[in-house]
Amino acid sequence: MVAVVLRALIDFCQSGKCGLFGKGGLIMFDVTADYVTYHLIDLPPVITLGVFGGILGSLYNFFLDKVLRLYNLINEKGKAYKLLLAATVTVCTSCCLFGLPWIAACKPCPTDTREACPSIGRSGNFKKFQCATDEYNDLASLFFNTNDDTIRNLYSAGTDDEFHISSILVFFIASYFLGIFSYGLALPSGLFVPVILTGAAYGRLVGMLIGSQSTLDHGLFAVLGSAALLGGSMRMTVSVCVIILELTNNLRMLPLVMLVLLISKVVADAFNANVYDLLVRLKGFPHLEGYAEPYMRQLSVSDVVTGPLQTFNGIEKVGHIVHVLKTTGHNGFPVVDEPPFSDTPTLYGLILRDHLLVLLRKKDFIRSCTASTLNALNHFSHAEFAKRGSGKHDRIEDIELCPEELEMFVDLHPFTNTSPYTVLETMSLAKALILFREVGLRHLLVLPKSSKRAPVVGILTRHDFMPEHILGLHPFLFKSRWKKVRLGKVKVTNIF
Amino acid sequence: MVAVVLRALIDFCQSGKCGLFGKGGLIMFDVTADYVTYHLIDLPPVITLGVFGGILGSLYNFFLDKVLRLYNLINEKGKAYKLLLAATVTVCTSCCLFGLPWIAACKPCPTDTREACPSIGRSGNFKKFQCATDEYNDLASLFFNTNDDTIRNLYSAGTDDEFHISSILVFFIASYFLGIFSYGLALPSGLFVPVILTGAAYGRLVGMLIGSQSTLDHGLFAVLGSAALLGGSMRMTVSVCVIILELTNNLRMLPLVMLVLLISKVVADAFNANVYDLLVRLKGFPHLEGYAEPYMRQLSVSDVVTGPLQTFNGIEKVGHIVHVLKTTGHNGFPVVDEPPFSDTPTLYGLILRDHLLVLLRKKDFIRSCTASTLNALNHFSHAEFAKRGSGKHDRIEDIELCPEELEMFVDLHPFTNTSPYTVLETMSLAKALILFREVGLRHLLVLPKSSKRAPVVGILTRHDFMPEHILGLHPFLFKSRWKKVRLGKVKVTNIF
Repeated sequence: MVAVVLRALIDFCQSGKCGLFGKGGLIMFDVTADYVTYHLIDLPPVITLGVFGGILGSLYNFFLDKVLRLYNLINEKGKAYKLLLAATVTVCTSCCLFGLPWIAACKPCPTDTREACPSIGRSGNFKKFQCATDEYNDLASLFFNTNDDTIRNLYSAGTDDEFHISSILVFFIASYFLGIFSYGLALPSGLFVPVILTGAAYGRLVGMLIGSQSTLDHGLFAVLGSAALLGGSMRMTVSVCVIILELTNNLRMLPLVMLVLLISKVVADAFNANVYDLLVRLKGFPHLEGYAEPYMRQLSVSDVVTGPLQTFNGIEKVGHIVHVLKTTGHNGFPVVDEPPFSDTPTLYGLILRDHLLVLLRKKDFIRSCTASTLNALNHFSHAEFAKRGSGKHDRIEDIELCPEELEMFVDLHPFTNTSPYTVLETMSLAKALILFREVGLRHLLVLPKSSKRAPVVGILTRHDFMPEHILGLHPFLFKSRWKKVRLGKVKVTNIF
Repeated sequence: MVAVVLRALIDFCQSGKCGLFGKGGLIMFDVTADYVTYHLIDLPPVITLGVFGGILGSLYNFFLDKVLRLYNLINEKGKAYKLLLAATVTVCTSCCLFGLPWIAACKPCPTDTREACPSIGRSGNFKKFQCATDEYNDLASLFFNTNDDTIRNLYSAGTDDEFHISSILVFFIASYFLGIFSYGLALPSGLFVPVILTGAAYGRLVGMLIGSQSTLDHGLFAVLGSAALLGGSMRMTVSVCVIILELTNNLRMLPLVMLVLLISKVVADAFNANVYDLLVRLKGFPHLEGYAEPYMRQLSVSDVVTGPLQTFNGIEKVGHIVHVLKTTGHNGFPVVDEPPFSDTPTLYGLILRDHLLVLLRKKDFIRSCTASTLNALNHFSHAEFAKRGSGKHDRIEDIELCPEELEMFVDLHPFTNTSPYTVLETMSLAKALILFREVGLRHLLVLPKSSKRAPVVGILTRHDFMPEHILGLHPFLFKSRWKKVRLGKVKVTNIF
């Protein structure tokens, strides 16, 4: 739909009625102008590009991590510090962007170009800046364009002589560090375009240094440089391939892009994790990996379940619910039917903290511990149990109950999820993790093997599957991680 | 790797040392020769192409289904019939391919082509056939090329006058029905390339009929025609998009290809299922859909578990195992420890038919019912339990045991999977299906809610989740399928 509408508008605007609008297209940086071909001789420069791209990408992540930790320390001090930090970095960036072009020498305008040279307008390859009327400042051309235009200029074929190597070097270093310092401020900023831009400058630089060994154009080196730095920093191979392909509309470059991405990813993986993992870890989110660690196969779920377990009766005293909600941070509680409502304690299901809060807020309590309120559900509308937006959770502290109400009861049966996913306590931890990840659970109930015990042994949440938690409970596994599987197996068999 | 090696070999072979090898490339049908552009006015012809492509695609599936049912009836009669059928169709196809070009009129060779005209060799656009020395037969050019070359010819831009409309029509009808009749024979044949080829002819035909309304080239119509027929027959949108894109190396056509695919898929979905679903159904494979049907939410797993359940003791009599394996077709059996080995009957795990057969074949039995063989595992190598190739299963009938051995015992404990996935009997069937599909299970054990009953209620396999099985057990649900969800809910609440 977007493509068809955009195409129609482009058709309409090519008559010149829409100002700048008609300049865009479906492909952002079209580099198909030339028929791209490459040979075996081009492999060494391209591999070199990938190796150093991986190193630069992992360094990017390293610096970004350090800078974000520093910023977090400052931002935590208050809003004034947050604003001051953003303002300081903004002023420094502006000084840097405006000051650096002064160190570049002026270059004479090329005679065979169709573009205006020199230009003072908004877009264009040849910026006048401080130069004479038939000269241009190549560093200013890079700095004083939008990111998109600069990337398009760097990707352009047949512009090998347009930039001086010192300008490209200065631009690369500046955009590398400015990209790092401008992320994490109280400003809208991203990771993707800065890395593409820095990578394009990096690729041009490599092209100028060792491009004479190959038949590739410097514009192609810029495209591959972007891929190398994206691969080294983001470590997403398939997505970056598709993005580069869509940006440049050149399927023939796919093998080279894939090669560069693989090399830079492998090199960078030797040093640190990808930038998104670093950000997730920095935020403290419990991110569960998609695969089970080998030592998880040696554990059963009962080895990682930690207590004490809080359960509710099917008809529970209000005071007890309030006490449990105030003293624990759990989000799900098993509901167990005790005698006289069943002949033995039986698991009825799982109730969520959010739903308990709705019940407490409504104050639809019963005086005695009897199952009589068959139509309790009718007192509630579906909307009351709807999931709230982020940060809009009810809190138990906000609900005020008088002592009399605390002595009353509430029937949890109609509000309990009677189909929670369960595993037996002897289940392999690795297989429980697969269930947890593949089905996308928040709570996993652990049932006892023997029928003589309480009907629920515990609840597994994401935190229980985190390697830090498991290795904290079973520190000897940390050593066996680095030993052969067989050794680890023997050790564990002896201990359990 | 493939791309880099291929590129190196192409470089090497361009010197002419490798014969035909050097003609290939990474892109199969390169149609980027012209800068493709399209406008709003092209939409009506393209939408028409998609609509009729969808109708033709669903008709293709309909005919294929009928023909395959007929072929299956013939093939079942024996190998001689199978061969005879293949031979008959082959002879008919040959007669058709060789006979049809006779009805086409000869066309004079174009003067402005670089290709040889007319040609009698293996490849080329202009076949001489029965024509004079400066004429060519356009229908013969389509029939007497490899499929790849014909597709490339049809996709070529700037060849609008090369083919006569009657030739394209004859070729389209012939390849449409030959494609249907040659699938399912005792011959190597496929679906993809015939459909692409037929679609290319279909696209050309539409281009000739209504192409004057648009600015698109007939070669582009051929590409879109392939997409339309693939979409109408295979119904795979994203994959076909990528395939068309990779075959033609033209990202700018993506919006048009997407549009045609969506239209033809939607139109064809109104008539019948996609060709792969038809084939799976024809073969009788129990294919489980990825989503739960609405009525599954109203059932619990205990509603679909069917008995009787066959379980084994931890230490089981050989005769009983042989009897159960001979009288049932089950592939997995729960292993339950009974007193005196545990104080109450306890689920130990799940054992597979294949592993039981390995145990019986080895005849490593014990004389009395005692748990003493701690090192039973040492008598077996891992390779003995390895999964066999398709069709190489052991059969219980092939294992011969004397009456004395049938009275002995075998300890199943070391060979039992002690971590089977389990659900409680009150679990919602829809949620059990999600677990079954997402984790990719073959057996799912159903545990009782009450601890007083046997430790296993039943086993769910793929067949138990099939709509036919469920609706056979609960026929009233079939009606509620077509009613509103609310109605269905009320009915079921009343019944359970």
